[in-house]
Amino acid sequence: MLDETIKTMAYRALNDQGPDFKYSLSVDCVIFGYDEGILKVLLIESDQPEYYGKWSLLGDVLHKHEDLNQASYRVLRERTGVSNMYLEQVKTFSEVNRHPAGRVVSTAYLALVNVKDYKLKSVDNALHWHPVSEIDAMAFDHKLILDTCLNALRKKIQQEPIIFNLLDKKFSLRKLQQVFEEVLAIEFDRRNFRKKLFATGMLVDENEMESDVHHRPGKLYSFNLQAYERFKHKSFVGLHF
Amino acid sequence: MLDETIKTMAYRALNDQGPDFKYSLSVDCVIFGYDEGILKVLLIESDQPEYYGKWSLLGDVLHKHEDLNQASYRVLRERTGVSNMYLEQVKTFSEVNRHPAGRVVSTAYLALVNVKDYKLKSVDNALHWHPVSEIDAMAFDHKLILDTCLNALRKKIQQEPIIFNLLDKKFSLRKLQQVFEEVLAIEFDRRNFRKKLFATGMLVDENEMESDVHHRPGKLYSFNLQAYERFKHKSFVGLHF
Repeated sequence: MLDETIKTMAYRALNDQGPDFKYSLSVDCVIFGYDEGILKVLLIESDQPEYYGKWSLLGDVLHKHEDLNQASYRVLRERTGVSNMYLEQVKTFSEVNRHPAGRVVSTAYLALVNVKDYKLKSVDNALHWHPVSEIDAMAFDHKLILDTCLNALRKKIQQEPIIFNLLDKKFSLRKLQQVFEEVLAIEFDRRNFRKKLFATGMLVDENEMESDVHHRPGKLYSFNLQAYERFKHKSFVGLHF
Repeated sequence: MLDETIKTMAYRALNDQGPDFKYSLSVDCVIFGYDEGILKVLLIESDQPEYYGKWSLLGDVLHKHEDLNQASYRVLRERTGVSNMYLEQVKTFSEVNRHPAGRVVSTAYLALVNVKDYKLKSVDNALHWHPVSEIDAMAFDHKLILDTCLNALRKKIQQEPIIFNLLDKKFSLRKLQQVFEEVLAIEFDRRNFRKKLFATGMLVDENEMESDVHHRPGKLYSFNLQAYERFKHKSFVGLHF
């Protein structure tokens, strides 16, 4: 029975796609990091001759014994040494001529890290954190992929508390507001912002104050996942448009 | 230069993936339809020997000269005759053993239609609309794909007014509330629901009344896309968790 199925598929492949139709599958990781008030993305210089020296996302082809999630975690681990960062599949890019070497379909992932937690290895000379707002041209369709993932990030941080992945475990409300404002490229009213966040019950007062700051030290908070899960359950359904 | 790149890729493929690593790319379409108060999905009986007679989503392999969006539109056109329905990429499924015939990576699309606008062709004997709530086992990982797309639909109708794709062009507020309640499997308070919808400025009073209904006829409304775009622009940014 299995042989029959394979024959059927091979027959369809020959008829529908042509005998020379080969493609490759890859992942591309948009690794966002927050660094002293600036949203950055981790890029590498392309080694593809057509895009030599242009900036490109971190990615690789899918291996035989892994799914796309595992491929993305492998890329992140190999490039950053970090194995447990926030990772989410965003979209698959399949435009016919997107890759000069042939038909390559690529699935984009969005990852979030606190830049402070991440040390660039000395061997990674071509690997750099770039302010997202300063990036224009990139290799392949990577600018489109970056923009798509930035929009997905902007949408998602308004719906779920994932922004905490960009911050230290303990943070001041000033820092929390700054990272929201930097990612969304807008300004929030300070009082409304705080009221909204406290209303969720997700913020835990750590009974500590900031140190080493040039302004009046603020209280430090952390994030309570259980409280969020309760809150989410209660408030999930509604019309938010 | 191009030759060099192809050689590099071939070399990597041999080393990383093994010379026998072949995969196929496909699309699977979760076509949701609304039919007299019931959310349904369009399914076909599987012709794969391993899943003979089980229900499966409508899909096909990616062809040489098309991207994934085009492949999905082709599947929808071939199966339903409709070429302009609401279509959106949801997620790519790549689990290593998801397909018995080999490594098949599949991108799931969500489509929305008004069942009344769609006539099943007589040749499509095995093609049927099924109430979503009555489906349990399906071929392949199609139940997982269906559930993923149902969750995406539930999330999205709370954020953007896409639900109109399931209704007639003119609809009563009673019908609009019913379709929201059916998809989300909850009940809304009638007054709050109407207040919320009117506040968006998206509803256009058609100055017509329902006919052929067993209850008191309601006023008919349609949806104003331009008004939504203005509203969206104004209200996009905020914390909705």
